[in-house]
Formats: sequence, structure tokens, C-alpha cells
Amino acid sequence: MTSQKVLIYGGKGALGSVCVAHFKSKGFWVGSIDLSPSEEANANVVVTRMADWEEQDREIQSRVSEVLNGDKVDAIICVAGGWAGGNAASKDLVKSASMMSRQSVWTSIISASLAAHHLKEGGILTLTGAIPALEGTSGMIGYGMAKAAVHQLTKSLAQGDGGLPKGAKVAAILPMTLDTPMNRKFMPDADQTAWTPMEFVADMFHGWVLDSSNLVNGSLVKLITTDGNTVTEAV
Amino acid sequence: MTSQKVLIYGGKGALGSVCVAHFKSKGFWVGSIDLSPSEEANANVVVTRMADWEEQDREIQSRVSEVLNGDKVDAIICVAGGWAGGNAASKDLVKSASMMSRQSVWTSIISASLAAHHLKEGGILTLTGAIPALEGTSGMIGYGMAKAAVHQLTKSLAQGDGGLPKGAKVAAILPMTLDTPMNRKFMPDADQTAWTPMEFVADMFHGWVLDSSNLVNGSLVKLITTDGNTVTEAV
Repeated sequence: MTSQKVLIYGGKGALGSVCVAHFKSKGFWVGSIDLSPSEEANANVVVTRMADWEEQDREIQSRVSEVLNGDKVDAIICVAGGWAGGNAASKDLVKSASMMSRQSVWTSIISASLAAHHLKEGGILTLTGAIPALEGTSGMIGYGMAKAAVHQLTKSLAQGDGGLPKGAKVAAILPMTLDTPMNRKFMPDADQTAWTPMEFVADMFHGWVLDSSNLVNGSLVKLITTDGNTVTEAV
Repeated sequence: MTSQKVLIYGGKGALGSVCVAHFKSKGFWVGSIDLSPSEEANANVVVTRMADWEEQDREIQSRVSEVLNGDKVDAIICVAGGWAGGNAASKDLVKSASMMSRQSVWTSIISASLAAHHLKEGGILTLTGAIPALEGTSGMIGYGMAKAAVHQLTKSLAQGDGGLPKGAKVAAILPMTLDTPMNRKFMPDADQTAWTPMEFVADMFHGWVLDSSNLVNGSLVKLITTDGNTVTEAV
């Protein structure tokens, strides 16, 4: 029996590495796409072309085709991303906006293209948005713009002629704050019982891959954690 | 008496050149930012750095500072933009998304930064969104993402700590289809009585610069044209 396959975009990141481990533990073949190889993944697509979006896309498409060798995947999980602050008066406005665009918009569009070509019919594509970007985000302008773009991409891909394989579904997760080592380091005094455990997210993804019948195509799935308990709310 | 000043980003485009002419006719000093110089403008910032967003920003900031020589402007009108189609299965997905990002997102963020540094208190910044991008846009994925990002940027900048000068207001226009020479050429059989005249838009901008008291900060102003009549609806 051939194992199920999943591609994790950002497989070396905080959430990505948890997802790699989770799907591995469930018997999946896992491919990781990131700037450095994941030791746990079955195969790695290491991104080296950083300057140009089209070049980066060509590199990833070509290497994913090689790694999959004609097989299709059950899911593409894009959890690449990052964070930068700053309002319009920040001297780093464009630098931050550019970084956020590379980390969230480039990766999401490349994931959409990978899904169009390598996802099984009825498969799952997940992208990563953010609750704050549903409104204005004056203190983190580049971040909010990039995440708002990901939200709108999710809606586009869910439309019948969005280009995904037949029966495939797309959803974006919208975290408020994830419980990552970096967030623990930089926000030691924050209320960490309001942070969403990464294992919760990985398990939710796995649930969608096993049975997507309750997942509304194009959902923006808010992750709301209170007193250590996480609930989801799709918008 | 010193004349009022306005910067038109995209002053050589279809809508931009109408705006340059309109503000000139009202006695404004007009600076144009575009890839080639506007003969009608009082001053030109010609963009030559195309490969990198930060380099392009530095070039424009430096040249605008030179041209304004310490003066502040009454308005910054960003009407740069473009259009590209294609869903997720398009071989040009990334190429189109990249072009849309450069034409709409780069220009809008650079305009926001210009506004933070060169706009008068109480001045006006306008950006350019699109009605379709309020929902999914499966047939024009890159376009919709870029415009959704501009909508969210508009909301961020309108917040009190967005970084714009005191009392300044920002709004985005959301056209459906503008009545441009290119659209007439490529859609000769469309219902052109549903297209918004560019002169209407230029006149609306001028009205906002004269008196912004009725303009709600952060508005996304839909331009709805029916039987040749245009009305606006702010969301």
C-alpha cells in the first residue's frame, strides 16, 4: 500500500516542523519545502533562489516535480511566514513589507500553483492568514497587507474556476498568536494561555486530510485560544 | 501666493494623465511619478529602479525630496496599476502576481511612505483598489490579491497610529471598469455606459483636496456607473 503524501511548505519553521513530525507519526510520506532541509522529512525541496519570485517558483516547481516523480499529494500545507512591525512612518516600511510579501505572499501563490499541478482530486490546500489582518493593522502594515492578500487568495481559489483540481478544498488558518519558542522568548510576560498550541493546528490539518466533508471550501479558520482551550471559527 | 501642490503617482497612465491635467487646470503645482516624464507636470520623478522594491523606494524618496525641497503637498494621488488575468493553473500565475504586486502593492506602500514624510497635516492620500477584489477573483488571482492588499493598507493607514500626518485622510477608489482608451480598444463590445469616466474620478479627487470634511477616513469608495451616471458608495 502506498502511503499518503503531504507537502509542508515551511517545514523547518516552528509550526512547519511540528506538522512534519505529526504527519510522519501518522504514516504519511512528507516532503518539506524550506530554506534548509528537514531531517525528519522523506524528501526536501531546499529553496536557494531568493531574489526573484519567478525564479524561486521555477526552482520549486522543478524540484517538486522531481521529488514527486508523477505522484500526486493528498495535501499541501503552507505554513511559511514571519512577522514584522512598523507603521507608514517607519524607515523600514518597504523593507518590512517586502519581507512579509516574500514570506507570505510568494509562498502562498507558489503553493497555489503546486496545488494546481500536484494535488490529488479532492485534496487539501492550506494557507496561513492572521486574525488581525481582517481589519487594519496600523502597527504592522506590511504584515497585515500580506496576510489580507492571502485571505483573498483563499477566496479566489475556492471558486469553481480557481484552477485547483476537482473536489479539492482550500482553507486558511488565521492564528492570533501561536505558542512558538520564538514567541515565548520575545513575549515572556504575555498571557500564554491565549496562545494556540502548534500541535492543535497540526492535528486539525490531519483531520481535514482524513475527512474534509465538514470543511467549507474557502474558509478563513480563526484559531481562538482562551485559558488554554482552542476553538475554531470559520469566516 | 504659493499654489497648492499634488503628487500624482502614475501620472503618465490613463487615469494619471487625466488627473495631472485636471489639477493643472485648477492651478495646482503637479509632480508626476512614473516610468516616463509627463510633459504637463511641473516636475517629474522618473522611476528607473525596477528590480527591487527597496531600491525603487530609495530612488523615489530621494528624488521627491529633491523636487519638493522641503515643501509639503496637499495630496498624494496614487493611480498606478495594471491588470492581468489567470487562475491558479495558469503557467503565468507567478509572473502575473509579481507584476500586479509591483504595479499596485509597491506603488501603494511607497505612496504611504511619501505621505508620512511629505503630506501636509490634513492632507489627502488616495490609493487604487478594485470592486471585484472585495470577493474572490478566481480568473485574475494576482490582480485580486494585490488589490485586496491595497484595501487592507487603506484601513491600516486610517487608524490613529498609522503614521500619516495629523488630520490627514486616506481613501481608496474601487473602480469596476474605467473608461480608458485601452479598455475601449480591448473590450469594444462591452457596455461602455457602465464604465466610469476618468474625469469623474479626477474631479472627485479635486473635491476631496478642497474639502475633505465629508470623506470618511479609510473609506473604500466604490465607483458605480450605470447608464453613464456614476455614483459612489463607501465601504
